[in-house]
Amino acid sequence: MASNSFGDIFRITTWGESHGKAIGVVIDGCPAGLDISEDEINMALARRAPGKVYTTPRVEADLAEIFSGVFEGKTTGTPISIIIRNKDADSSQYATIKNLLRPGHANYTYIEKYGIFDYRGGGRASARETACRVAAGCIANKILQHYQIKVVAYIKSIGSITVNHLPESVLALQTATQLSPIFCPDTIACDLMRAEITKASEAGDSLGGVIEFRVEDLPAGLGDPVYEKLEANLAKAMLGLPATKGFEIGEGFTAATMQGSMHNDSFENAQEGIRTTTNRAGGTLGGISNGMPLLGRVAFKPTSSIKKAQQTVDLAGQAAVFQLPETARHDPCVAIRAVPIVEAMCALVLVDALLRNRCTRLG
Amino acid sequence: MASNSFGDIFRITTWGESHGKAIGVVIDGCPAGLDISEDEINMALARRAPGKVYTTPRVEADLAEIFSGVFEGKTTGTPISIIIRNKDADSSQYATIKNLLRPGHANYTYIEKYGIFDYRGGGRASARETACRVAAGCIANKILQHYQIKVVAYIKSIGSITVNHLPESVLALQTATQLSPIFCPDTIACDLMRAEITKASEAGDSLGGVIEFRVEDLPAGLGDPVYEKLEANLAKAMLGLPATKGFEIGEGFTAATMQGSMHNDSFENAQEGIRTTTNRAGGTLGGISNGMPLLGRVAFKPTSSIKKAQQTVDLAGQAAVFQLPETARHDPCVAIRAVPIVEAMCALVLVDALLRNRCTRLG
Amino acid sequence: MASNSFGDIFRITTWGESHGKAIGVVIDGCPAGLDISEDEINMALARRAPGKVYTTPRVEADLAEIFSGVFEGKTTGTPISIIIRNKDADSSQYATIKNLLRPGHANYTYIEKYGIFDYRGGGRASARETACRVAAGCIANKILQHYQIKVVAYIKSIGSITVNHLPESVLALQTATQLSPIFCPDTIACDLMRAEITKASEAGDSLGGVIEFRVEDLPAGLGDPVYEKLEANLAKAMLGLPATKGFEIGEGFTAATMQGSMHNDSFENAQEGIRTTTNRAGGTLGGISNGMPLLGRVAFKPTSSIKKAQQTVDLAGQAAVFQLPETARHDPCVAIRAVPIVEAMCALVLVDALLRNRCTRLG
Amino acid sequence: MASNSFGDIFRITTWGESHGKAIGVVIDGCPAGLDISEDEINMALARRAPGKVYTTPRVEADLAEIFSGVFEGKTTGTPISIIIRNKDADSSQYATIKNLLRPGHANYTYIEKYGIFDYRGGGRASARETACRVAAGCIANKILQHYQIKVVAYIKSIGSITVNHLPESVLALQTATQLSPIFCPDTIACDLMRAEITKASEAGDSLGGVIEFRVEDLPAGLGDPVYEKLEANLAKAMLGLPATKGFEIGEGFTAATMQGSMHNDSFENAQEGIRTTTNRAGGTLGGISNGMPLLGRVAFKPTSSIKKAQQTVDLAGQAAVFQLPETARHDPCVAIRAVPIVEAMCALVLVDALLRNRCTRLG
Repeated sequence: MASNSFGDIFRITTWGESHGKAIGVVIDGCPAGLDISEDEINMALARRAPGKVYTTPRVEADLAEIFSGVFEGKTTGTPISIIIRNKDADSSQYATIKNLLRPGHANYTYIEKYGIFDYRGGGRASARETACRVAAGCIANKILQHYQIKVVAYIKSIGSITVNHLPESVLALQTATQLSPIFCPDTIACDLMRAEITKASEAGDSLGGVIEFRVEDLPAGLGDPVYEKLEANLAKAMLGLPATKGFEIGEGFTAATMQGSMHNDSFENAQEGIRTTTNRAGGTLGGISNGMPLLGRVAFKPTSSIKKAQQTVDLAGQAAVFQLPETARHDPCVAIRAVPIVEAMCALVLVDALLRNRCTRLG
Repeated sequence: MASNSFGDIFRITTWGESHGKAIGVVIDGCPAGLDISEDEINMALARRAPGKVYTTPRVEADLAEIFSGVFEGKTTGTPISIIIRNKDADSSQYATIKNLLRPGHANYTYIEKYGIFDYRGGGRASARETACRVAAGCIANKILQHYQIKVVAYIKSIGSITVNHLPESVLALQTATQLSPIFCPDTIACDLMRAEITKASEAGDSLGGVIEFRVEDLPAGLGDPVYEKLEANLAKAMLGLPATKGFEIGEGFTAATMQGSMHNDSFENAQEGIRTTTNRAGGTLGGISNGMPLLGRVAFKPTSSIKKAQQTVDLAGQAAVFQLPETARHDPCVAIRAVPIVEAMCALVLVDALLRNRCTRLG
Repeated sequence: MASNSFGDIFRITTWGESHGKAIGVVIDGCPAGLDISEDEINMALARRAPGKVYTTPRVEADLAEIFSGVFEGKTTGTPISIIIRNKDADSSQYATIKNLLRPGHANYTYIEKYGIFDYRGGGRASARETACRVAAGCIANKILQHYQIKVVAYIKSIGSITVNHLPESVLALQTATQLSPIFCPDTIACDLMRAEITKASEAGDSLGGVIEFRVEDLPAGLGDPVYEKLEANLAKAMLGLPATKGFEIGEGFTAATMQGSMHNDSFENAQEGIRTTTNRAGGTLGGISNGMPLLGRVAFKPTSSIKKAQQTVDLAGQAAVFQLPETARHDPCVAIRAVPIVEAMCALVLVDALLRNRCTRLG
Repeated sequence: MASNSFGDIFRITTWGESHGKAIGVVIDGCPAGLDISEDEINMALARRAPGKVYTTPRVEADLAEIFSGVFEGKTTGTPISIIIRNKDADSSQYATIKNLLRPGHANYTYIEKYGIFDYRGGGRASARETACRVAAGCIANKILQHYQIKVVAYIKSIGSITVNHLPESVLALQTATQLSPIFCPDTIACDLMRAEITKASEAGDSLGGVIEFRVEDLPAGLGDPVYEKLEANLAKAMLGLPATKGFEIGEGFTAATMQGSMHNDSFENAQEGIRTTTNRAGGTLGGISNGMPLLGRVAFKPTSSIKKAQQTVDLAGQAAVFQLPETARHDPCVAIRAVPIVEAMCALVLVDALLRNRCTRLG
């Protein structure tokens, strides 16, 4: 029921509004004995933050503080509480628009649901909430690294521009992604995308995009039939992110246009053990990982906050025009900042599946 | 943790293997006072069963028996146990192929996970498991109907053929879908699809497809931030179905190619209250229903079981050829039979959200 | 939320009314690879059934059928569905009393809660429901035995008669309990208890009792801080049994009368490792098992169904007298039949804790 | 699974170690629209804190800060994060005893479980953790008050001294309890208890005690069959508290010595509706509230920390003597400070049951 928690064994609970005192996450079920430091979490947060090219001008000095669960540098098995203080929160600009339904935003639905909404900065519905997922995902990722599992996400497309060339190895892919100002490992596509973004931004408009994720060296056997399939939990994780509209695993919607003889992956006995000669399935069969790379994609809509004037109504139902103040923060493509968040959600799903899998056999 | 349960308040637990004695579902949390009969459930099962054109020749007289939770025709609030006996289960043909890894199937991953697999008829990984979802979905749907909420799913595309014309009203859509032998409400597309299916079937091959679902008269306010967004639970529900590879809400992956000014839906004060002039979002904002029709799609891969010979290995790692026996059941397009199952999962997610929503305000 | 499920990883879901077609249990999360047969389950059920001295004359040929989850004699990791058909259910006698509120029974509260009640034989509130716990507990117990963990429960007191002498070893205790017609390992107390029961029975009355449970060779480290303490889950398990009114661990309520210097157990380094010289704590410290025997007690009220006339009202609020028909089944002391059920709940809690504990460290 | 969370719909997650930066609680699922202020929470915390007579000399200025979920004085339906900073935490005295197994404490079991333990001040196993339960319980209690439900807990016995006279009305009981320095509403018993406590304290020893709780004006119908009985959740709540060894509802263990004709409560049609003439059941039948006062008891062991020397071993297994430093904090009877905590747990269980009950009928 708890709608602000995610995961079963490695379980996170996040809290906080965009313009409240702070946001935070409690991680329950992290195995004891893991080395962890605030620095590592802050480095993960920095990737998501606006040193990068296209993002809101808000200067978020997102500094995570660990309040519990770590003793002498190691996790103890007790809940890890991480708090990120909010700064630079000028709520005054929201006062003028608080009674307007914002196209593409959640203020209308929150009010319909709860009868009350902390409208300042988007409140709980703000993308700022995802910083806590990144903090928790950083710890999840450390566990995966302990088992040599590698997760990477990157921009696959923005608007009509799609990546053409990707490095084969996951390490090269990670590096190329990290070097890109927009997390796009294909430098040619990256330049085209940046031009598109600039154009949209100058027009007061925004762009959507697709993020691809890839996981390597994942052992076979993760994921649980029937409702807890690995891709089911990944889909829930991704569609639980703000601005997401679609999820695919393997060939995804393209699979729906294929024939079985084209889509089925043949098995072979390779040097590294049994594997499939192709990976159209995207790393799972029957909802359980098959030892091949896990591969999927997430669709993000264009940023809802645009500077163009939009028709709307106010809470009383009177027609009105909504226009973001000139000085308002503006992020022309939310997909870019979402790359580390997709990685984080991936890591959270996988760690949970990894721990659950310990209980599968009598042993 | 329980991986064979779905839902929180209206919670189903399914069990059973394809060639075991029976399959079944326990529904816990169904509100008391609902009229329900075995006949209604059996009618729902019949829609999924093979009186329809393209499906496996297995004659499944899927007759549901209610074993508990209903007294004098009404639900009592105690768990409803429904059992569907398995018949016509000739497991002998599976003996010859039990040591082969089946391309596109789950036998390899189940063995990797559990060290043991009931291979007969696909065991727990068989699509037969979904009959229980349909039985439970029938009861969920009755609750939705009690609140005038209408759910319909239909074939949107098969292979390269896509539906062009859909009735506007949900009732007309339901009727057209029901009349189609392949749940396709567009009769022209239907004919083209049937020709494609026949061709694939004759070639011993199979086709993928996309199912669209549509929910009307859903009240605003359903779905919970942040991890239990309505579309997040729908995505999990759908990706937990066998053979699914993708999920979309609203414009889905197309949204990723749009600009904000194109994608945002404007609000207006219409006769029926506040609504949006367009519905690109697909019925939710911030993960909460906004009173507009809920609209999404699910991608199904082509049936894994094909009659063409396929390269594979056996459990010992020796190269082998897998070929389905000539006499084996064969379903050239799993998406077709999945239509009532998508409807069922939709209904299960919505009933759960509806009940959860009762706890949202102080009242 | 699901109120008919118990346990997290090893999770049971039970269903069924006393006079319905059957009762049953679905076990989700049982590790793969465990040998299990219907015979074993039926032997466990037989212990609970009325070959024993004082119980209702209803001839329950409680035969469990395994419907899923076991293949070639071994669990496969998929849900195990067990069904026990109801027989000999004459509901006619209940028709005459269906409108009376039965003192000590649940028909009033069920009607207040649900507005409807399957009154026949007590419906879902019947102690018959516990047979499913015994069936599931049998499988849980097999897992414990795999790890050499031994569980035993026995009658500690009935009415005013209390056991004085208990065998020291758990095996002798199990044997003495098994040999007793009332699960009382102290033969002298047993005789006194039987005399008391006969007296109460002849007077149309009933007696309460206390069951003690004891677990040996339980490893240290089971149970989770802070809300999932081992004794917290045991307490919930026991107070979820019909007719229970109290739970104790270790010295229990006696501890409240002691001084710290008397109650604290000193640690020593014994041959078998670190242990405490006494075991007043009853096997846990801070909610986590400490390697000492787990020891607790459960209080059962006297059977509510008695043959003496009792003042009550009917559903319309009219004063009435409730009197059980002369021919009605009658069990003068529910605590006796509850002994295998307490054992079963113990085993269920411990298996769940054992599996959860696999996820505690990084490893 | 999450072992630091409690409740399903109204769900709390607590975190923090005794000598860490802070402790805190996240409340998820609190209905929107409730007035709440930090002052109210701090008044609840003050009741638990040491202005009262017998408690540890640690000056805990327990000031709760609300970090999220409240906007303009009202809950918004988003998670409420409350943080209480730790002060006055001198950990140096723990360094000398960190390698000793402390009789009656959890350091041994935590190390066995996790391989690591934040020993400072008892870490997560410290009773300090319960301050977060009081903060959350304060909010739960406000919801109960909104529905006119009254909860009170008080000292029933300390050592061998038991309360004899209690005010009949719940309001008088609340007042008398509040006026007592040891939460004991019987002034004569209170004096005797204080003398006992002084004696034990001077001897460097400690005393156990029993807390009774009473809930009035609880509607019938709360609590869910079969595993989520109201008393089952209360039992889990209470046995999840530090130092608890037993739980009773109604007559509790005394019921086990009674006859059915004595124990059964007769129904009558009173002015206020159907009720029972006595309340031996303690307010529930079949696990569901029956509209009578809810009445139960919790047994607390004597404080484990005593100043008397105790035999033990160190982590290496070497025999040693454990002796609390003269200057160490010392609480001669933990039961006293636990009174507001028992009230808090009661309120948490009841609010959850109240909200769950909204989903029971079709409506």
